[in-house]
Amino acid sequence: MINKKYVKIGNSPSAIRDLFNYGLEQAKIVGPENVYDYSLGNPSIPAPAKVNETIKWLVDNVDPIKVHGYSAARGNDSFREAIANNLNKRFNLGANPDKICVTCGCIAALTATVMAITDGPDDEIVTIAPFFPAYYGVMGIPRCKLTIVPADFENFQINFDALEEKINEHTRGVIINSPNNPSGVVYTEDTIRKIAALLERKSKEYGYPIYIIADEPYRELVYGDAKVTCIPTIYDNTVVCYSWSKSLSLPGERIGYVCVPDKCENGDDLYWAVVGASSEIGSVCPPSLIQRVVEACIDEMPDLTAYDANRTLLYNSLTEIGYEMAKPDGAFYMLVKCPNGDAKAFSTRAKLEHNLLVVPTDSFGCPGYMRLSYCVSYDTIKNSIPAFKEMYEYYTK
Amino acid sequence: MINKKYVKIGNSPSAIRDLFNYGLEQAKIVGPENVYDYSLGNPSIPAPAKVNETIKWLVDNVDPIKVHGYSAARGNDSFREAIANNLNKRFNLGANPDKICVTCGCIAALTATVMAITDGPDDEIVTIAPFFPAYYGVMGIPRCKLTIVPADFENFQINFDALEEKINEHTRGVIINSPNNPSGVVYTEDTIRKIAALLERKSKEYGYPIYIIADEPYRELVYGDAKVTCIPTIYDNTVVCYSWSKSLSLPGERIGYVCVPDKCENGDDLYWAVVGASSEIGSVCPPSLIQRVVEACIDEMPDLTAYDANRTLLYNSLTEIGYEMAKPDGAFYMLVKCPNGDAKAFSTRAKLEHNLLVVPTDSFGCPGYMRLSYCVSYDTIKNSIPAFKEMYEYYTK
Repeated sequence: MINKKYVKIGNSPSAIRDLFNYGLEQAKIVGPENVYDYSLGNPSIPAPAKVNETIKWLVDNVDPIKVHGYSAARGNDSFREAIANNLNKRFNLGANPDKICVTCGCIAALTATVMAITDGPDDEIVTIAPFFPAYYGVMGIPRCKLTIVPADFENFQINFDALEEKINEHTRGVIINSPNNPSGVVYTEDTIRKIAALLERKSKEYGYPIYIIADEPYRELVYGDAKVTCIPTIYDNTVVCYSWSKSLSLPGERIGYVCVPDKCENGDDLYWAVVGASSEIGSVCPPSLIQRVVEACIDEMPDLTAYDANRTLLYNSLTEIGYEMAKPDGAFYMLVKCPNGDAKAFSTRAKLEHNLLVVPTDSFGCPGYMRLSYCVSYDTIKNSIPAFKEMYEYYTK
Repeated sequence: MINKKYVKIGNSPSAIRDLFNYGLEQAKIVGPENVYDYSLGNPSIPAPAKVNETIKWLVDNVDPIKVHGYSAARGNDSFREAIANNLNKRFNLGANPDKICVTCGCIAALTATVMAITDGPDDEIVTIAPFFPAYYGVMGIPRCKLTIVPADFENFQINFDALEEKINEHTRGVIINSPNNPSGVVYTEDTIRKIAALLERKSKEYGYPIYIIADEPYRELVYGDAKVTCIPTIYDNTVVCYSWSKSLSLPGERIGYVCVPDKCENGDDLYWAVVGASSEIGSVCPPSLIQRVVEACIDEMPDLTAYDANRTLLYNSLTEIGYEMAKPDGAFYMLVKCPNGDAKAFSTRAKLEHNLLVVPTDSFGCPGYMRLSYCVSYDTIKNSIPAFKEMYEYYTK
């Protein structure tokens, strides 16, 4: 009489987590300096100093009944105001504090948004490969379909013919994740304008708005000349889902939001549906201390020096060896083509022969590639290069 | 195209929250000392000093990447061990760290448990009036039926004939909430033994286990000679749902757990289904800093002096006036009979005439009564007594 679906979800092994655990075990045998673990997307730079300073200040200076008491269901008023001000100042986004719903992290934000714009198994949400496989889980409660647009293997922007083919009268939303997990690619403004034009045309054709769900936890992680285009300023019917997991290095603290900009069609109903859905999944009244902390740190920006150095070293070293990859302008991921064309075999051999842990992206809708999470130490990257070289030569000699 | 069900949930006014907000507005007009707000169940005693000391110690002494990084999906290993040790030491409960799933609070724990033991709209979960109305929301995602057993108005234990009548071949679980919200009543050991005997008999009759879902956030809030019976030591098929919201005064921090004791039938499947369900509602990897804090404070017990003084003063004053009520042995609630028999009318008059804010318990399955949350200041209680007296006299003169 136990629900089999949930037993399966609870019991299902995580390939990424398994790799990570293998690395921990191997580190005991060969020493941590000889394990090159590119598996997890866990920030390797600490939270800005102001985060911990604020935590200490709050517990020393504010009534503990307030600090640790229930927050407002959809997030504290002052926090929602701070979020809206930050978004409007930086992006002129049209954010309204009364249309922001604070959530327990970005997955909760995505889940509540999909619940709000769908109504059962006939409805479809589109994602563009390569994509974050947690999106499958996001469809679980709304029980709608995840439609996958094949990757643009040329430059990892968007294959528009394939996208248009996947949109139909059941499409309720399109998830746009830029900078992208797993590719690290930032969609150009031209790409975003093309999506907007296509969705405007399709919305008109079907007579209802197809929303863009902008999944933006990596928004602040962008390097060199690349620019993250602010989607709501180009496409009105955009809902923004965010968390401070990466930008403030707070992934464990479960704090994010849904923002329904003022220009969004049916915005009032959409917003209250997000609040209702968030309530149903128990994501209301998100962690109280950390709401106050992020409010105080809302204008902090991450110091990307370490990630950028890692990116440059890894990109230059791998391309010099001969590896091909997507242009890694954002997040802390690289999507690299496996020279043998079989990412699972590549990952297994790299693991067993070199303690080099890389994630095959078959489940990200991108077979034949591997994801490297370069949120590791600079030395790990430096020391891992010979292993990458041997792997390349093994498959191409 | 917006999901109407969630719009309704998001938009629906909360009677309790409305009362609370009315109180805030009135406080600006008549002064906070003249508003007697018994609406919210928000702890009025601060978290133990060790909580904030531990927070400061952690941010000063532990790598921020660890403190604020992702926790294990079902909670940190050391935290689950600390929880199991605490439960076994105090209750000899048969808790196993590998069958504890840490969640973002108790509602998430209840939701994951109900999702784990049900499979659609034919399945039923039984609750005993008076009961916490948030249970309706808990049934939302599993889409199962909440079956209500009418209250035992004699002594607010359990009406066993009514309970037996409500159990059928669709019953999957029975929620037992003791100390009870809203009555403050603690179920006696005799009551628990009778439930256990009934459910054992019914489980045998139907050929599958009917689980008790022990909803225990008030477990440590008990006064005088009253004892909270540890249900899993009496009924094997009990799942414990808990949060530290009340015992450590951390309601805003969203931290709780599901414990599937080792003796529980189908315990492995049940546990992994809870983990899978918790993952689907996004309650995995609960807040990381606060996991470490509660782990360090796991043996802290609340200082109940203030609540007990409030309870004594309020109980003695109200009974002296003539009010009748359930015996308030636990939690920080009292369930008081409205002398006019109409709780909504009583509440409205009390609010408008006396700024006395009391919650009608019609939606708690107990019409004609009001809930008083006495987690307020002692002075509030003292100063509110004349208003209670006038209300009583108005309806009985």
